[in-house]
Amino acid sequence: MTRRRWCAPVGVASALLALGTASAQAAAAADQLIDAAVGDSAAYRRLALFVDTFGNRPSGSERLERAIDWVVAEMKRDGLENVHTEPVRVPHWERGAESAELTSPRHVRLAMLGLGLSVGTPPAGITAPVLVVTDFANLRARAAEARGKIVLYDFPFDPDKKPFEAYGEAVQYRGSGADSASQFGAVAILVRSVTPMSLRSPHTGAMHYGDSTGRVKHIPAAAVSVEDAEMLHRMQDRGTRMVVTLKMGARTLSPAPSRNVVAEVHGSTHPGDVIVMGGHIDSWDVGQGAMDDGGGSVATWEALRLIKRLGTRPKRTIRVVLWTNEESGLAGGRGYRDAHLSEINRHVLAIESDNGVFRPTGIRVNGTEGAMTAVRGVMAPLARIGVTTAEPGQPEADVSPLSELGVPTAALEVDGSRYFWYHHSEADMVDKLDPADMARCVAALAVLAYGVADLEETLPRGRAATTR
Amino acid sequence: MTRRRWCAPVGVASALLALGTASAQAAAAADQLIDAAVGDSAAYRRLALFVDTFGNRPSGSERLERAIDWVVAEMKRDGLENVHTEPVRVPHWERGAESAELTSPRHVRLAMLGLGLSVGTPPAGITAPVLVVTDFANLRARAAEARGKIVLYDFPFDPDKKPFEAYGEAVQYRGSGADSASQFGAVAILVRSVTPMSLRSPHTGAMHYGDSTGRVKHIPAAAVSVEDAEMLHRMQDRGTRMVVTLKMGARTLSPAPSRNVVAEVHGSTHPGDVIVMGGHIDSWDVGQGAMDDGGGSVATWEALRLIKRLGTRPKRTIRVVLWTNEESGLAGGRGYRDAHLSEINRHVLAIESDNGVFRPTGIRVNGTEGAMTAVRGVMAPLARIGVTTAEPGQPEADVSPLSELGVPTAALEVDGSRYFWYHHSEADMVDKLDPADMARCVAALAVLAYGVADLEETLPRGRAATTR
Repeated sequence: MTRRRWCAPVGVASALLALGTASAQAAAAADQLIDAAVGDSAAYRRLALFVDTFGNRPSGSERLERAIDWVVAEMKRDGLENVHTEPVRVPHWERGAESAELTSPRHVRLAMLGLGLSVGTPPAGITAPVLVVTDFANLRARAAEARGKIVLYDFPFDPDKKPFEAYGEAVQYRGSGADSASQFGAVAILVRSVTPMSLRSPHTGAMHYGDSTGRVKHIPAAAVSVEDAEMLHRMQDRGTRMVVTLKMGARTLSPAPSRNVVAEVHGSTHPGDVIVMGGHIDSWDVGQGAMDDGGGSVATWEALRLIKRLGTRPKRTIRVVLWTNEESGLAGGRGYRDAHLSEINRHVLAIESDNGVFRPTGIRVNGTEGAMTAVRGVMAPLARIGVTTAEPGQPEADVSPLSELGVPTAALEVDGSRYFWYHHSEADMVDKLDPADMARCVAALAVLAYGVADLEETLPRGRAATTR
Repeated sequence: MTRRRWCAPVGVASALLALGTASAQAAAAADQLIDAAVGDSAAYRRLALFVDTFGNRPSGSERLERAIDWVVAEMKRDGLENVHTEPVRVPHWERGAESAELTSPRHVRLAMLGLGLSVGTPPAGITAPVLVVTDFANLRARAAEARGKIVLYDFPFDPDKKPFEAYGEAVQYRGSGADSASQFGAVAILVRSVTPMSLRSPHTGAMHYGDSTGRVKHIPAAAVSVEDAEMLHRMQDRGTRMVVTLKMGARTLSPAPSRNVVAEVHGSTHPGDVIVMGGHIDSWDVGQGAMDDGGGSVATWEALRLIKRLGTRPKRTIRVVLWTNEESGLAGGRGYRDAHLSEINRHVLAIESDNGVFRPTGIRVNGTEGAMTAVRGVMAPLARIGVTTAEPGQPEADVSPLSELGVPTAALEVDGSRYFWYHHSEADMVDKLDPADMARCVAALAVLAYGVADLEETLPRGRAATTR
């Protein structure tokens, strides 16, 4: 998951009656799908095998492409239909060797990770005094001190806010902090890792250079651990002069070939109508990318496998898409849209799971009130596994290009309390997920996709007006 | 903190009346000391300055000795009495460069820390297949497979046990796992880090080679993160052959000079009677050694400073001792005992704080029922800051040599729920502690030391018979 901002639930729709129009077939299918999913830990075992075998899967890497090959072969073995890949060219950024060392007042090797898409440093690194600022306003107030410095943004993750709200606030410094500091003459930036929990564990993520005029110099950007950011801040508060040497071998290569993965179960009566459902198969280059988003990829795939195994096809086609390059460019999401422009108006709903396959709680919908009502009806059988809320909100990243063209979207909402503990860090490993919770996610995704695919009427098109 | 096993509270004494014999002067002093401590964050600020300035302080390092010099100078500036150091020769182990890389079935750089006092590997490392075992019984059952292997002990930290109990159980594999595997022909060991919480954060700690006959070969030993241990275990369960290359530049040099730090406030009427109180000033070579045990060192020192500032001396002398080399040999604790043998029978009580200066809850006593009763009386004023329990239990490590000679001991008990999250890891940084909790620890230590120092009668001598 990257870049998404949390969106306050509007709350209006929750007062409406859940006017389900689900077919008797869909109701029976829902119960069978739930029983099949929650009675098994197949999804978790497959995810563990997947991430243990391939590890993390950054865009442009050979291991992402080998992982894709394996998924395609497995999907064919599962008997899924029309299994294929669709080519996408993706940004190719490589981290290289990197370090950040405090050299004065004493030597400390800071816990760091370069930010994705950052430029590198010269081989000898950049050595400069450090200026710690708390936020953009504080940077502007101290602009005269920034020239020639490495600026550290020590903006904390607010523990009193909802996790995605706190993330949205803090991630700005990761995203655009380099340009903001560069315009005042800073030579590099460091950001406090965007997380509420740290064991000296740095978190990476995408940054971007917003200025294309060439007037704002592109400077290197890295995250340091919460602990290191706070230590440097304490030192500055004591009047200590700090010097850091930042070395980053990061480089951006030519765009690389990658692929979206597609698999389907064809609809019985309206096979040209499509419910898209998926996660993103790429990850950052740390940990295993198990939570972000191996879990969403395998859960949606597993949901389709259970639907296939049912034997009773829904009216419309369900298509799993595992998007490539969500993290560092969204080329997969855009590429899918571009490749399927001619059938966009046959896209009924686009579902994504990209908040970790933790305990699922509900569905977040971006669409009209009519779409929301239909989703509520379809969801009713999920109450017995605790999936009860249906609220309006923003689309996930990979389906946002479809949303922009009027396709309703749905996102699996889960317990997000620990998501940012692991997000974009070495700790994003499969042990952070629970087999029973992941099975419930599979159940929720399967029931949602099947139910919408089997509705009498298609969903009304259109984005929600109520969300940003 | 190292090596201590949790000891079940006996619970008998808690039913006894708290027969306080504290003087009116001590009662007044207690209230003043509590008010002075909890109204200020001086202890936390000093600890932060201390650990930010010197970092971690392993035995044999120059930074430990510079830290000791600074503490001595500061104690003199505080006006403490008889401030001096006492020489101790300490084991000198150096980590050197180290790594553990899974090379098959794929390349993964494991998150690792060599174990303290381990031998190193040859420069090219040790490359061998991995055998994962769950415990010593499982190792014995698979002994025939261990020859030529790197044995990984994947023994989990039991979340359902009290933290120090779970630690005591799991730490055996760190402590003596090398010899156990070596006798079956293993070429190195890895242990799952001893912690209930991991963000791919390895934890070091002392190991020992128990066999001095030379028949059991000393093999290198390192901790890997919980996540890496579980991944290797999953791979083995799938029948995957794993190969790891372990490189450790660890070496043990000649014993090095170090020092215990001593500072006093002299008693008014029995200055030859001594209440000892302290923490250990050394740490492992990761993080800042803020929790283990910079906090205990600064809190006991701060307690003495507040007692000095009171102006009303207790009857007996209070002596702060900051022991060196707790982590890798206990040379400081033994050296103190040896240097003070002639006055051991004048040691009334030996207090240590080495469980982190988290929210204090009580005092753990190793002594006779009479000593326990007297401590209860002295503690009474601490109820208002939540320090209420007095239970029998084992002495802390540095005072255990005194305990063996019959000196009653006391340990500050604190909320231990997060201690092992940070213990012996890069995350042992000062931000993990809370200024208000640390101030309460200072208050508890000051009241306990002053109260016992000002009793009419000295404490009865003797170790508790009720504890292991």
